[in-house]
Amino acid sequence: MQEKLSKLKVLLAEVADLQAASSVLGWDQLVNMPEGGAEDRGDQIATLERIIHIKSTSDEIGQLLDDLVGSIKDLDADSDNARLVKVAKREFDKATKVTPEFVSEFARESTVAQSVWEKAKKASDFKSFQPHLEKLVDLRRQYADFFKPWDHVYDPLLDDFEPGMKTAEVQEIFNSLRPKQVELIKAISEKPQVDKSFLTLEYPEKDQWDFGVQVISKFGYDWTHGRQDKSTHPFTTNFGLNDVRITTRFNPEYLPTALFGTMHECGHALYEMGVDKKYNRSPLGGGASMAVHESQSRMWENLIGRSRPFWNYFFPRLKEIFPSQLGNVDIETFYKGVNAVEPSLIRVEADEATYNLHIMLRLEMEIALMEGRLAVKDAPEVWNEKFKEYLGIVPPNDEKGVLQDVHWSFGGFGYFPTYALGNLVSAQIWERIVTDIPDIDALVEKARFEEILAWLRENLHVFGAKFEPQELVEKVTGSKITPEPYIRYLDKKFKEIYNL
Amino acid sequence: MQEKLSKLKVLLAEVADLQAASSVLGWDQLVNMPEGGAEDRGDQIATLERIIHIKSTSDEIGQLLDDLVGSIKDLDADSDNARLVKVAKREFDKATKVTPEFVSEFARESTVAQSVWEKAKKASDFKSFQPHLEKLVDLRRQYADFFKPWDHVYDPLLDDFEPGMKTAEVQEIFNSLRPKQVELIKAISEKPQVDKSFLTLEYPEKDQWDFGVQVISKFGYDWTHGRQDKSTHPFTTNFGLNDVRITTRFNPEYLPTALFGTMHECGHALYEMGVDKKYNRSPLGGGASMAVHESQSRMWENLIGRSRPFWNYFFPRLKEIFPSQLGNVDIETFYKGVNAVEPSLIRVEADEATYNLHIMLRLEMEIALMEGRLAVKDAPEVWNEKFKEYLGIVPPNDEKGVLQDVHWSFGGFGYFPTYALGNLVSAQIWERIVTDIPDIDALVEKARFEEILAWLRENLHVFGAKFEPQELVEKVTGSKITPEPYIRYLDKKFKEIYNL
Repeated sequence: MQEKLSKLKVLLAEVADLQAASSVLGWDQLVNMPEGGAEDRGDQIATLERIIHIKSTSDEIGQLLDDLVGSIKDLDADSDNARLVKVAKREFDKATKVTPEFVSEFARESTVAQSVWEKAKKASDFKSFQPHLEKLVDLRRQYADFFKPWDHVYDPLLDDFEPGMKTAEVQEIFNSLRPKQVELIKAISEKPQVDKSFLTLEYPEKDQWDFGVQVISKFGYDWTHGRQDKSTHPFTTNFGLNDVRITTRFNPEYLPTALFGTMHECGHALYEMGVDKKYNRSPLGGGASMAVHESQSRMWENLIGRSRPFWNYFFPRLKEIFPSQLGNVDIETFYKGVNAVEPSLIRVEADEATYNLHIMLRLEMEIALMEGRLAVKDAPEVWNEKFKEYLGIVPPNDEKGVLQDVHWSFGGFGYFPTYALGNLVSAQIWERIVTDIPDIDALVEKARFEEILAWLRENLHVFGAKFEPQELVEKVTGSKITPEPYIRYLDKKFKEIYNL
Repeated sequence: MQEKLSKLKVLLAEVADLQAASSVLGWDQLVNMPEGGAEDRGDQIATLERIIHIKSTSDEIGQLLDDLVGSIKDLDADSDNARLVKVAKREFDKATKVTPEFVSEFARESTVAQSVWEKAKKASDFKSFQPHLEKLVDLRRQYADFFKPWDHVYDPLLDDFEPGMKTAEVQEIFNSLRPKQVELIKAISEKPQVDKSFLTLEYPEKDQWDFGVQVISKFGYDWTHGRQDKSTHPFTTNFGLNDVRITTRFNPEYLPTALFGTMHECGHALYEMGVDKKYNRSPLGGGASMAVHESQSRMWENLIGRSRPFWNYFFPRLKEIFPSQLGNVDIETFYKGVNAVEPSLIRVEADEATYNLHIMLRLEMEIALMEGRLAVKDAPEVWNEKFKEYLGIVPPNDEKGVLQDVHWSFGGFGYFPTYALGNLVSAQIWERIVTDIPDIDALVEKARFEEILAWLRENLHVFGAKFEPQELVEKVTGSKITPEPYIRYLDKKFKEIYNL
């Protein structure tokens, strides 16, 4: 068995190396690549993805897994080796259902579509992106068909980001969450709005960059194993566990964009940086799921980054960098300002109370696209209608509407719901941390994040993808994904801010 | 035959995609990668290179080539298809001599060694780099052994950069070149030195960057198919023919470093950008050899960039950017200053008359290392001794001595001589251009480089790697690589500058 395990690990490491290579090409495409390189890059990534697919579905790996699945029964079911085989077998079974031709075509189409989307977004020109999105929707439906029979066409897509979770489960969670969020937003809308005018002044990019770097350095972002760049849409990526990069973007006239975006991506990065290095170059070397990942990004962005103790430490420092913009703002006003609840256009800049509505809108559209009930050409119109219905406002153009997110441009249908799930998990985990570290506010107030990061590493990060997400959430918090802690968190916070 | 050709092209395109991917990882390593990523990057590149090697030496390609080599006899020997098969067969035969294990080990060692070298150079700490260099020398000797029998252990190494050229040929060219160069340098050294003090003032990096961009934009560098970044050692790389990137470096107290380095790399880039796009993703999609490549970089850097007509246009513009540094310098003084001949430490900053001596020193050391006559541990001492002998000066430390160049850190023995050969070829080509474009000085004086670039494209760039380097040089200039035009060029130029 040891020999077979070693052999399997070598083969999986090779696949991991190729996946890392593909990620480098993807990162480069979004951060550096001149536009003329798009088509060739599509070919390069398609070739890599095809080889990754062939290698990760090889008969050799299949045979080793079949042999090992039997013999690991003698091992502790929670041992690294038993879990490695289990996770690898799960991924192998999924991957073998899809043809290499499909993988290659999807990689090529999505790479080209991303470049088209970048330009289409800038020009607010949905028409130029439409044929690419149509192709990707079609390919994603073909993808789902590889996994028939399913309960719902959306299940296989969701499963890619949230292993084991079903569309019906998400809909159930969302259905119980929606009325409470709507109720909260309604209550807030009846109160006087807090002042946040000071957030929309001129904030030079360089100073924003420096402050963000200061914050995430305090969080514990390890610059010897990462770097930050600018991109159209902020993201985190990693090439193995020792090179975990983040990107951010700036709005020179709106402070929160880069400020909270940087903290958000740093949260993702801290997760990957905290995975046990022994899992490097293996299927366990990464986060457990996107929802768990989002729980980490949202925790650093919101539960820490939009908290009063955080700003007790950082607001004076922010004021030093932006004296003319914030000289007359007191900390209470600032704290309330960065927590203002108000229907807004851009998901990544939405407040904590309205954010999940942005997700619900997208989920409904994705399900309708996949079911064939919604045609791509109608997406901008439906987006705007739903926006009006959910948030009471209508985007002035597609750049700020249907084109705002990168996800559809790489065919990432199934991804969005994990954001909302991540919000829920972040609050679940936070309730647990607060129990274990009762003086947590005092630590945050001194920007002493070491103990918090250590807790997260020990209880969550270190396990990588060893456990399935629901299993892991239960292990860490005592229960599976549930909306109550998040609702409790929102209620408490906004009752106080808005005197509800 | 058509079917086999198509099949071969698909397989070669796959290899080209993987090579491009590997180049992206290499570029990223030198431009962006945090130091903590070095070891994983070594694994990633090693895996890619191993797969490239396996794929490019596959029985399938071998069989197709064997079949096609017979049938292309019916084709015009200079047709694209005939040449493609010929070049692919040559590369296949070379690659199949080397084991995949060696390729993988070499890729891993050289990747790690590059990171070690970066740090060792900064710290002028040869000792930390020594074991890596020993390993690379050992690996390169093993590499040569795959190609036995050879006339000289250095032949297979040279052949990687200069297809078909032998060590003895290079030595013969250098032997005829050396006395003439030494004679010229001696004559110059007996004359009063020109003023170049104004080059060592403070030149802010940002302004240097901007001027460099202005120059290479005029040269015709296509920013939609390329970009410029900073790196420790300037280089050009490309990922297919549509994404050709250059790097540069700055010395804030020495203007020529970035100025001529940028033009040099742009010369390389213009060559790759000019290769016929129909050769993209094939073995013909790139330069013919390193010497031909260097002929292009050195031509833009020196024959154009250090010429009087060039500065007639650009000096007033340079003065505008650096009024305090150059306000009192006239164009004649500036022209002579950037052409000053003086023994110096850094190869890439050496003047045109002494440059080739830097190369000869390296070639002798490389040959001695490969023959086993020189131990790596003695390299710093021998470097300094030879430096004294050739150039009359001794480097103050290894950073400015044996550690200055990146080449040995990636095991690139055999590369250096192509620089000197490139100088010779640049002058050969220039004599030909001047015949075809008699008013060339007038064009350069107006920064009208379109006609020159068009000439180079039509007569040289467009062919890519279709012809062997000596064949191509003869096709373009009427003779194989020969030192006379370069000597004529140097003599004429420096007689005038130094009143010899």
